[in-house]
Formats: sequence, C-alpha cells, structure tokens
Amino acid sequence: MRTQVAIIGAGPAGLLLSHLLAQGGVDSVVLETRSEEYVAARIRAGILEHSSVELLESAGLGARLRAEGDEHRGIYLQWPGERHHLDFVNLTGRSVWVYGQTEVQKDLIAARRAAGQEIHYEVSDVELHDLEASPYVTYTDSNGRSARIDALAVAGCDGSFGVSRKAVPAAETFERVYPYSWFGILADVAPSTDELIYAWHPDGFALHSMRSATVSRLYLQVPNGTDPQFWSDDQIWDALATRLGHGQNGWKLTPGPITDKSVLPMRSYVQTPMRHGNLFLAGDAAHIVPPTGAKGLNLAIADVALLSRALVARFAGKDDRLADAYSETAQRRVWRCTHFSWWMTTMLHTSGDPFDAQLQLSQLRWVASSEAGATGLAENYAGLPIFL
Amino acid sequence: MRTQVAIIGAGPAGLLLSHLLAQGGVDSVVLETRSEEYVAARIRAGILEHSSVELLESAGLGARLRAEGDEHRGIYLQWPGERHHLDFVNLTGRSVWVYGQTEVQKDLIAARRAAGQEIHYEVSDVELHDLEASPYVTYTDSNGRSARIDALAVAGCDGSFGVSRKAVPAAETFERVYPYSWFGILADVAPSTDELIYAWHPDGFALHSMRSATVSRLYLQVPNGTDPQFWSDDQIWDALATRLGHGQNGWKLTPGPITDKSVLPMRSYVQTPMRHGNLFLAGDAAHIVPPTGAKGLNLAIADVALLSRALVARFAGKDDRLADAYSETAQRRVWRCTHFSWWMTTMLHTSGDPFDAQLQLSQLRWVASSEAGATGLAENYAGLPIFL
Repeated sequence: MRTQVAIIGAGPAGLLLSHLLAQGGVDSVVLETRSEEYVAARIRAGILEHSSVELLESAGLGARLRAEGDEHRGIYLQWPGERHHLDFVNLTGRSVWVYGQTEVQKDLIAARRAAGQEIHYEVSDVELHDLEASPYVTYTDSNGRSARIDALAVAGCDGSFGVSRKAVPAAETFERVYPYSWFGILADVAPSTDELIYAWHPDGFALHSMRSATVSRLYLQVPNGTDPQFWSDDQIWDALATRLGHGQNGWKLTPGPITDKSVLPMRSYVQTPMRHGNLFLAGDAAHIVPPTGAKGLNLAIADVALLSRALVARFAGKDDRLADAYSETAQRRVWRCTHFSWWMTTMLHTSGDPFDAQLQLSQLRWVASSEAGATGLAENYAGLPIFL
Repeated sequence: MRTQVAIIGAGPAGLLLSHLLAQGGVDSVVLETRSEEYVAARIRAGILEHSSVELLESAGLGARLRAEGDEHRGIYLQWPGERHHLDFVNLTGRSVWVYGQTEVQKDLIAARRAAGQEIHYEVSDVELHDLEASPYVTYTDSNGRSARIDALAVAGCDGSFGVSRKAVPAAETFERVYPYSWFGILADVAPSTDELIYAWHPDGFALHSMRSATVSRLYLQVPNGTDPQFWSDDQIWDALATRLGHGQNGWKLTPGPITDKSVLPMRSYVQTPMRHGNLFLAGDAAHIVPPTGAKGLNLAIADVALLSRALVARFAGKDDRLADAYSETAQRRVWRCTHFSWWMTTMLHTSGDPFDAQLQLSQLRWVASSEAGATGLAENYAGLPIFL
C-alpha cells in the first residue's frame, strides 16, 4: 500500500488530520489498534475552545456541534461562601462550547466514511521504519495478515501509549505527576448549573460539568489509587453537595442515577521535538495535560491544524518551511497550555498544606476581583488563536 | 510613664505609626532595642509602590523622596536572549519609586525628632502585660533602669524577632521556607540600567537594582547556607554578567567596587490574627515576604496606614469599628502580597527541575506578551490602593 501520509491513530487527532489533509489534496491511510466502536464510545473531554470550534466549522464539521452543542460564555469559580462568574465573552470576546469528544469523534467518523477515507481498525504490531529517508509502516491487520504502508510522512496521533512517540530518538521529556486524581461520574440528570462550576474546597476540588441538557458530568479530587467502587453513590453525591456548596445562597445540587464511574490520574507530560525526519507527532503522543484546564482535545486540534497545513504545503506546494517549523511552533502553544493546565490544577486542588490553601484562596480572590486576573484566566481558557 | 499608644519598634513601621498618630492627635511612646544609628543604617528594601509614596507625601514625608528618589515606570523582565520592559504606568497608571528604606528611616527620624517624639533606644527586657484590659509595657532603659509605660493600646512593630508577635496567644501561622537565598551586594558604580532587571537564567535568578545614580544593588540566587566570603568579587561580577546577559544586544554590565556583601534567606510567613485585645501587630511582626516582589516595606506602610486610622478613630473619635476590622482588613492585603511575592519568587528562581524551568519560561513569555499577563504583574507590583 502506498499513500502520502500514514496516520497512526484514529482518535480525534488522527481523523481530523486525515480530514484536513484530504481537503488540501493530500492522501492518507489511518491505522488504529482499537475497534471503531471503542474509539467512538470512550469518554473524554467535553469543552471546545473558541479556535477549535472555528477550525471544525471551517472544515465542514460544525453542523451538529452548532445544533446540539451548548455555547458557554464562561465558568463559575467558587470557594466556600463565594461563587463568581467569569464571563469570557465580555473579557476576551471568545466563548467555549460544551460538546463531548465522543461527539466530535462521531462527526469525524461520519465525515471520513462519507469521503471514503481508508481506515484500518484493530491492527496490531505497528512498527515505524526508515523515518529519516523513505518511511514505511508495518502492521498486522484485523484478519491477522501482515501489511505494509509506504508513505512520504508518518503522523503519530496514537497517544501516550502508542508507538510513535517512542520512535523519536533522544527526545527530551518533561513530566510532573500530581499527588491526586479525579473521580469522575456521568449521571442521567439535568445539570444543576448553566455553566461549569470550578470549586475550591478544604475537602478537595470539585467540578460540575455537563454533557447535555440531561447528562451531568461531575468530578471530585481524590487521593491517587482511589478505587471507584469504594465510594457508594450516596457518598459521591454527599461529597459533591458539600464541595459544590449545596444550600448556599439557595443553590441546589440535584443528584441522579450514576451511569459511569472512573478515576483519572493527573499528570503533565511534554516530549520534544515533535518531529523526527518524516515522523510528526500530534496530540497526546507528544503531550499530556491534567484535565483541569480542558486543554487536551483542544491542543490536539491545534497541533493537527498546524501539521495539516505544514504537510499540505510540503506535498502539494513543495514548500518545507512550515514542516520545518512545526515542532517549534506547536511547542509554544503546548507550553502555554501546559503552564495554564498546571496553574489551574495547582490553584484548585488542595495539597494539605495550610500555606498552599491560603495562597490558593488569595489567588482565587484576585482572579475573581481583578480584571487583569480574570482576563488572564479567560484568554487561556477560551484559547489563543491557532495561527498566531 | 503614660501614653495612648506604646509602640514597640522604631523601624519604619513604628516611626511612621507614631507620626500618623500624632497627626491624628494621638500620643505615643516608641521603644527600640537597637541604637538609633543601627536602625538608621541597616540596609533593607529599596522600592516604594505608588500608594506608599502617596501616603508618605500626604503625611508630609515626601519632600526628599521626590527630590532624591527615582521614579520608575516599570521593570525589565528577561530570560536568555530576551529582555522585555513592562511599563506599569501605561498598564495601570501607577509608577514605583526607588528610594531606600534607609532614606525613609532617616526622614522619619528627622520628622519625629522635629515633633519632639519620645523614642527610647537601646532598651532591653521588653515585656507586654495585661493586653486584654489595661496594657502596660515594662523594660530596662539604656541606662539599666527598670521602666514602665501604661498605655491604652500597644502597637507591635518590632519585626519577626520581637516580643509582640509572641504575645498573641493561639495565633495561626503559615510559613514557607524557600530552598534558595539572595546573595546581595552594594557597589559604588552607576547602575547599568535605568530600571530594575529581573532575570531568569538556568544558573539561577539575578536582579539588577540600584540605590542611586552612583550606587548599584545587585542580587544572585544562591543555595541556602552560602557564605558570602566564599565568593570573590570577580566571581560575583562574572555570575552577574552571565545571568544578566552582558554582551547580549549590546547591553553591558559595568562592575565596580563592592562595598557590602550579604546573604538573605527567603521565606514567607503570615501570622493571624494581627490583634489580641489591645495589642495590634504591624509590618514584619505579623508577616514576612521574600524580597522578590519588593513588598516588605510597602506592606508595613499599608498596615500602619490602616492601624493609625483605626487607633485615631478609637481614641480621638470613640469609634471602635476600624480597630475591630483591622486584622481582617490588613490580612486581605497581606495575603495578596504574600501570594504575589511567592508567585514572583517561584517564577524567577530555578529549582533544578527541568519541568519547572519550562513552566517558568512559558509563564514569563505569557506575562511579557499578554496585556492581561503584564497588567496582572504590574497592578500587584505597583500596588493596590491602601484604602480599598
């Protein structure tokens, strides 16, 4: 098999890349170790920043997002006794959209299927070869047959457990593991809030998010290693009610049937460079952020926007400059978002140290009361333009 | 001896308090364990924020400051290869003044002497008594005689080593000790910069400050426990040249004779409440900040501005409301400045962790390039209004 770009991974990064490359006249083949059903169903992020929405829309992927997604002007930031709304639209002119990664994935699968995109699911033994000269990828297909794709470039969109990031020799890595996790639940109940509530509480951080008008998504800071089965549904709702301030100023948290429980560890990870010869990394293959800033999916979209433009210029326009600049250009945004995600995380999660707690409260009061403080959070959360 | 307010400590906090109280018609007596020469000569902070200058001026203490001090529009923030000017005046309408604490102290001594203020230097064995009812202070005077002051209130302006802060029972304390110190030098050489340079460098933080047109003040981040005598003058200037970017973009650091070397440990400390009965704490007696944000002297001035107004209302106006609100009102500013000082410190000092270094650089690039980021730093550095 021969193609211009072999894309490893059929998550949002890989599929969006194949979509944008096709629009630029560049062919690709996508390989994925999981099944289509699995990648379409896995629960991930739920917030799209302004630029991500613009990009999906300009790529023809915005129809269902606009119809079924929910535009949010900002977020609530709270600590015991006080809840403040930060209005990103007033502060920066930019909003965010609640539209689950699952939905983005479904839209991408539908669009790629309609375009006849070649995607091979349930492959195994993926190996990357000769990346500095004439790259090719070998793998075992879903029927157990050995296969090979020859390509001009390989795009590593296969996340932090994939083979691509390990194929960059002598990569520099940066990592921070946080001493807490998120206990996330999905519940079949209308959200008790119109926009996300980020709550600092002495017991630990809590977040009230949502997936739709009938599905709530909520999170609790828990110690690493927490077993989700250790918590009863009542205990979960009690902890959420306490941390989110049920009963304060008339606000009520409405519980409902919990349909999913999971514990997510939190870490920051950056690998650089994001290129080795004809291999280019995008999304989680090159960087992981803790979920507090809602940046993971948005960073993947931004990487792919840069990378598709670079590869189209390279293969359709015979211009290597964007490809040569890709890693450095992408890394500027990666570090901005890595810092922002670290900042949101360390501002909102209790460490057990009383000095930290007072620093956090002082920071929160400043962010909520200073226009500069609020704008700083807003411009990072609602997101910088992809092409600066 | 009998007075309305017994002030413990004749540093800037204690003397300014006696000055402001006198202007409000409230009598005070000041006790100081050191000699007048010692307190007038000790080298401390050098930056006055906008509100501090306004307050000193409105108290009739601004003449020499305006004549001999140096108004700065902002600071330089730099990292290898880049230097950015943050113009606080453009960003917030507020400037800062370079005018050493030593000079403030001299102005205060002159003003209090002219007003006939009673100040007892070189006292010892200071003890505070009956603070919840009819306070009095006992001490041994400079001639070795036992003495006693009966007062309506006691103001603890005697710093972190004084007796006052220990006289607040069951105080809550918050502390952070940083894993680095500042190696500070004074040099008889014109500053190589018009405004302060805050420099991030892989070798460690450096700061180019100044005292006057002919005296430079420079600092290097060093490990805790560093012996100043371990560094030769040449080594100091070499390290400063490297970290401050001598030779980059044509900028030169001019060395000169070093007249003072000292190593300052860095810590954050807050004690609350700042009141116990008729004892009120102000300045370093209640809180210590690392010097990176130039907040120590300014916080002391703000405390004393609040406290003098509260005590004047109490004793001249028979209104206790400001006194009752003093600790809580002061603490809001204390925590804002404690957070800001911690933030500046942890953004600029290298920890040895490569992830931290990249977070710092990303933060610095954002502060220098985002108006919200720059304004956030500027409004904290140039300072919030004292009376909010």
